[in-house]
Amino acid sequence: MDGTVHSVGDFHVRFSMQSITKVFTLALVMSRADHGIWRRVGREPSGSAFNSLYQLEFENGIPRNPLINPGAIVVTDQLLSDTGDALSALLDLLRAETGNPELSVDSVTAGSEAETGHRNRALAYLMASFDNMRNPVPEALDHYFRQCSITISTEELARAGLLLARHGVRADGGRLIDHGDARRIMSIMLNCGTYDAAGEFAYRIGLPCKSGVGGGILAIVPGRYSVATWGPGLDTKGNSVAGAAALEAFTDLTHCSVF
Amino acid sequence: MDGTVHSVGDFHVRFSMQSITKVFTLALVMSRADHGIWRRVGREPSGSAFNSLYQLEFENGIPRNPLINPGAIVVTDQLLSDTGDALSALLDLLRAETGNPELSVDSVTAGSEAETGHRNRALAYLMASFDNMRNPVPEALDHYFRQCSITISTEELARAGLLLARHGVRADGGRLIDHGDARRIMSIMLNCGTYDAAGEFAYRIGLPCKSGVGGGILAIVPGRYSVATWGPGLDTKGNSVAGAAALEAFTDLTHCSVF
Amino acid sequence: MDGTVHSVGDFHVRFSMQSITKVFTLALVMSRADHGIWRRVGREPSGSAFNSLYQLEFENGIPRNPLINPGAIVVTDQLLSDTGDALSALLDLLRAETGNPELSVDSVTAGSEAETGHRNRALAYLMASFDNMRNPVPEALDHYFRQCSITISTEELARAGLLLARHGVRADGGRLIDHGDARRIMSIMLNCGTYDAAGEFAYRIGLPCKSGVGGGILAIVPGRYSVATWGPGLDTKGNSVAGAAALEAFTDLTHCSVF
Amino acid sequence: MDGTVHSVGDFHVRFSMQSITKVFTLALVMSRADHGIWRRVGREPSGSAFNSLYQLEFENGIPRNPLINPGAIVVTDQLLSDTGDALSALLDLLRAETGNPELSVDSVTAGSEAETGHRNRALAYLMASFDNMRNPVPEALDHYFRQCSITISTEELARAGLLLARHGVRADGGRLIDHGDARRIMSIMLNCGTYDAAGEFAYRIGLPCKSGVGGGILAIVPGRYSVATWGPGLDTKGNSVAGAAALEAFTDLTHCSVF
Repeated sequence: MDGTVHSVGDFHVRFSMQSITKVFTLALVMSRADHGIWRRVGREPSGSAFNSLYQLEFENGIPRNPLINPGAIVVTDQLLSDTGDALSALLDLLRAETGNPELSVDSVTAGSEAETGHRNRALAYLMASFDNMRNPVPEALDHYFRQCSITISTEELARAGLLLARHGVRADGGRLIDHGDARRIMSIMLNCGTYDAAGEFAYRIGLPCKSGVGGGILAIVPGRYSVATWGPGLDTKGNSVAGAAALEAFTDLTHCSVF
Repeated sequence: MDGTVHSVGDFHVRFSMQSITKVFTLALVMSRADHGIWRRVGREPSGSAFNSLYQLEFENGIPRNPLINPGAIVVTDQLLSDTGDALSALLDLLRAETGNPELSVDSVTAGSEAETGHRNRALAYLMASFDNMRNPVPEALDHYFRQCSITISTEELARAGLLLARHGVRADGGRLIDHGDARRIMSIMLNCGTYDAAGEFAYRIGLPCKSGVGGGILAIVPGRYSVATWGPGLDTKGNSVAGAAALEAFTDLTHCSVF
Repeated sequence: MDGTVHSVGDFHVRFSMQSITKVFTLALVMSRADHGIWRRVGREPSGSAFNSLYQLEFENGIPRNPLINPGAIVVTDQLLSDTGDALSALLDLLRAETGNPELSVDSVTAGSEAETGHRNRALAYLMASFDNMRNPVPEALDHYFRQCSITISTEELARAGLLLARHGVRADGGRLIDHGDARRIMSIMLNCGTYDAAGEFAYRIGLPCKSGVGGGILAIVPGRYSVATWGPGLDTKGNSVAGAAALEAFTDLTHCSVF
Repeated sequence: MDGTVHSVGDFHVRFSMQSITKVFTLALVMSRADHGIWRRVGREPSGSAFNSLYQLEFENGIPRNPLINPGAIVVTDQLLSDTGDALSALLDLLRAETGNPELSVDSVTAGSEAETGHRNRALAYLMASFDNMRNPVPEALDHYFRQCSITISTEELARAGLLLARHGVRADGGRLIDHGDARRIMSIMLNCGTYDAAGEFAYRIGLPCKSGVGGGILAIVPGRYSVATWGPGLDTKGNSVAGAAALEAFTDLTHCSVF
């Protein structure tokens, strides 16, 4: 939290943030007083695949939590309504927290997401059918797909993650969200941050984590550190194999698990 | 089947065909030898709501049957691929069978469907995510929405239904589909033609029926008659209350149930 | 319906009736005026496996129809309450309709059912948890397991099936159920009588059928014939392969499909 | 962890442990090297009600985690196989850890559980149908029902909970389970310990908790304290209203949340 960075390996290589962005869009939405986001999305583990429709259908278009795909789409939709430009709001935050004003979207990745994202479209239209989308679906999804394609290095990601380790305090000393909201985000990360393997991560690593299919993982040691890993090889649940192993070794050696 | 028409009430009023069109698009697709449609859609009762996503998700994007919404979207998608213009193909058939060359789409209804059809979009994109759509989703749905908005009178609908009562023979004496395929369509109507009330209709009326939320019902007495009713008041399952009552009285009086 | 029997093959071999008994227990329950059975079981296709729990859970312990396992357990439970001895009531009926007073339970089969019927126990206790069982579960299931183990020949089964072909009139000329209730049972058979293949049977054969995993199938040509087949080889859905083929050939040759 | 006890209110009143026992039976099973329990039960959040069957059916009789009912039944079944007497094994542990050799089962509660536990029977027989029960269902359930009916005071429960706060070390200084297994149990408590409200508890309280419908809650501050509350009024999800409020106030005042 004092800004000292310890790095090993390819810590300057940029990779696609993908789902890791969900943590930061959520923080942005929660930064508004009276945000009302919990009327549109739940805070419980989902128990089903991160992009599943059936639970969403049974629960009337209210996603289980903000870290599964439909939940993150709702959060982006709200950020778009709140700011008029969800992508820019997120880029502004990440540029400020990482200290890198050049942080940007990889347009190739964004384009391929937009072409192949049929299931995300199905999720968004299903929510629209339950009146849980405020912007036109194609527009909200455009922001969603481009956000996911922001590229970042592990060093930058770790710096950005300090926002949570400091319980909501920004790099410039200002406060984005209050202490309790930072705790809430971290508890959702622990319960729901690593797709269908949240229970396994909670045991093996014991830290709030958020992974992305770009191979990155962000882990938080509340009040102390932020840790970021990158390894492109994914397990069957979509989490980085090398990243999970590194984090497990880290908590075994440092005993800094929350349990 | 000799062309004699018996009518009572508002038999010249035109109403929106809605789901009743599904029977005719299916016949058109089946009229092509080697149509392959049964690799894209099943033939079993669905046991869930006509526009449900969860069964479609569990069954990998293959709808249970061609008379629930996702099944009918697949059939329209195939007709579009087969003919280049699904709407015109259907209009041509219905104009020929009804003898009314003026039969057309009510553009107001079609427009409102297109605006509110979020759930149908969700269904179509979910099928696209399983690679079970051949045309772009917006294009296929445009044909689907406009087909549903064809307006017809009960007299015209009864004439069109003779196609099935004659086991596939058209008004001009030509054959659209073979005897066995007409039986198949009627068996699907009996099992799946009236939304979640197929079992109730099979008992009360005992005829292959297809209903639409425009208030119409088409019933077939195989080898003998075609019967069409219209009444705009719908029950909770989406079937015309007056139409169902009329058909029940009809089979009670005539004993022409298939059972 | 005049009692003439046409037979071919092993028509005197007795096999286990299994699920085919469900048709007759249902008729017995329906024979009581004010039976109230439709408050305890539905009449719609199930769309899921014959012994599935999840639909039963979502629908508060009310089985979809009387021909899937939980539905048949409810019917047996009611027959047990109505008569004090469900097995004897069924045996009495079948002995009278077949003309064979020796018809009985194969105790070896009954015992093996009782040992391996864990899923049926789960279904029954789930219904009990929704207060949809009237007798203690072990007692109701004992009657259910033993009923399924009644052995019968195709000739006898065909004779018994005339009860439905005659729309409720017994072999002795008395009436068990009224004409409408016989139609209802046959419509349920067409929609739900052959496990997950009801749609396929409706198309291929086009007659109300009820199959059993003992290899038997009972088919009804309403108002005309009753047909019974036996062949022990089952397809993946639990229906006799030879029986289905024979019935398909029969309706192709005689054109006596209901469609 | 030094044995000092701070108490307020009715801390000597005994209440029924109910689901809180699941934590201790799990610890007992895990205390055996090569216990193999994770082949019979998972470690992920369930996302559905604690006593739901449908997930169990889709996942072939393997419960999601050991703290929902079917998971706890499997754990008890294994403890019964391992020890020959699951109830006595649990009583021995709890008596030793609480220091109260009189701890016992409230036979009235146990009897009423056994009478009304139809859904638990359904769950157990469903698992038996997937070959995931080793003892006869009635016998395993008898141990399960009686375990749940052990009565305990908050003071005793807090003492017993130190087993986890000490990461597996018993009151007598011996070790029951290793440090990592204690972490695993606490991570499962955080994810799954409070029925459908695990996410809410993780946020509001931020401690591994296990609640019971007898009104008790056990919370662990890893490496420091064990906290037990009791209040009989339950919210709609089955957690004690007063207990949750007390724990929330406790972590707000002490800042000892894990986040």
